[in-house]
Amino acid sequence: MPTIPAPHPLRTVFFVSDGTGITAETFGHSVLSQFEIKVRTVRIPFIDSVEKAEKAARAINEAFQQEGQRPIVFSTLVKDELSDILRNSQGVYMDLFQTFIAPLEQAFGLKATHTIGRSHTSTDSDEYKSRIEAINFSLAHDDGQSSKNLEDADVILVGVSRSGKTPTTLFLAMQYGIKAANYPLTPDDFERGKLPSSLIPYRGKMFGLSIAPDRLAEIRNERFPDSKYAALSNCRYEVHEAERMMRREGIRWMSSTTKSIEEIAATILQEIRMEARAR
Amino acid sequence: MPTIPAPHPLRTVFFVSDGTGITAETFGHSVLSQFEIKVRTVRIPFIDSVEKAEKAARAINEAFQQEGQRPIVFSTLVKDELSDILRNSQGVYMDLFQTFIAPLEQAFGLKATHTIGRSHTSTDSDEYKSRIEAINFSLAHDDGQSSKNLEDADVILVGVSRSGKTPTTLFLAMQYGIKAANYPLTPDDFERGKLPSSLIPYRGKMFGLSIAPDRLAEIRNERFPDSKYAALSNCRYEVHEAERMMRREGIRWMSSTTKSIEEIAATILQEIRMEARAR
Repeated sequence: MPTIPAPHPLRTVFFVSDGTGITAETFGHSVLSQFEIKVRTVRIPFIDSVEKAEKAARAINEAFQQEGQRPIVFSTLVKDELSDILRNSQGVYMDLFQTFIAPLEQAFGLKATHTIGRSHTSTDSDEYKSRIEAINFSLAHDDGQSSKNLEDADVILVGVSRSGKTPTTLFLAMQYGIKAANYPLTPDDFERGKLPSSLIPYRGKMFGLSIAPDRLAEIRNERFPDSKYAALSNCRYEVHEAERMMRREGIRWMSSTTKSIEEIAATILQEIRMEARAR
Repeated sequence: MPTIPAPHPLRTVFFVSDGTGITAETFGHSVLSQFEIKVRTVRIPFIDSVEKAEKAARAINEAFQQEGQRPIVFSTLVKDELSDILRNSQGVYMDLFQTFIAPLEQAFGLKATHTIGRSHTSTDSDEYKSRIEAINFSLAHDDGQSSKNLEDADVILVGVSRSGKTPTTLFLAMQYGIKAANYPLTPDDFERGKLPSSLIPYRGKMFGLSIAPDRLAEIRNERFPDSKYAALSNCRYEVHEAERMMRREGIRWMSSTTKSIEEIAATILQEIRMEARAR
């Protein structure tokens, strides 16, 4: 974790939740990214009692007193008795739940349960188990480690070393429960002019990542400075050959150069047409 | 990915975004978890043009015609010209952005930029780089593979095999940029009655995971049925010894038995007091 030098804190943003706070944080960052402003963020998860809510409210009020500006509070508290305490603090209270619960109650013709800590699926659910299984699968099939059970893969990522395959496969598994293997395309493959033989039966599941050679050289140099592996000329060669191979084999591919792993994963997901899933 | 048998689709929920759709989806699932209802979900990411927005609106209208109930639409579109198209569809439109942008503009005394695709940090940002670095660190230090650079770890998870260490370390890295190593506690360690020697200098960074023996036996049996490793008696022994060791060494620990990786990670994060981070 980086230690970011703290500028004068312009503003504190609190993420308050009765669960992990991940929803409040993901959402809050997303909305805040629309403002040209630096903020200090504070997570307050697991607020499931009046005492804890009162403690959180005191922290918000203290930030207001110290900074002279009202802190922003993104909250996913589902119990009115808890959210009322935060609403009465000196923060600008953004109630992510209440705002949308009423229109949904109307649309569904159902009352919300206001059950605490429901935002992540139960560890007993099939969805949760399939995510854990996908993580184990993706780890076991990282970097071409195993060609066992490739028939179970939802997708097989290919690309030169350090093109972004590993973090993408892990994200696909963790966020979407996708079993994603990944295989490096290496100079050996380019010399043979063939895909790794264990992959050939699964061409339809393959998806390629490419990357701009100068960016690749930069990434490789961080790990192996001044090596042949990291040299720009070698990166140019490998990327050129990998793209040629993917074109020849009819493998769909995209460039990872300026994309985050979230963006790469969402693009792949769309490509492999798994947008619709029952919950 | 599981193939979940599709019940009669009561209701379709769309997640529409000009970016990956992850914010809309995380948030939507969180709110929907407050209702006792099964829904079919459809992701529509990367809606960054009028044409794409119109296509999404048609998909929503078709779902309405087929199902006879208004679909729910969670949207993080930041451009008014795009969100207006969806608002005029036959879905129940939940505008996650507009709802909170106005009060934030007032609080900050700033106008929102309405820039598309900003919800994930740029791949050039220090925060993004530190997440990727943390993922690489956590992978290199998975399952006690390496004791190199442990001084750089933010946290070192310990626990018996299959207590949930690996997915938790990967989640800590991916979500929070935490460099998390993990080490198994094994029968060898219990016989010696000592922590693995490479860990001893880092006791202060260690955090333990324990698990109910019957749940552990269940998990181990999935991989190695009828093995000594998976036998309930052995699981009881290992968990008992691991807890004894953690108590003796003064290592904080928690039970992973009924917790999701999100909940375990958020708890650890809170314990290691990193709630506050500059953005």
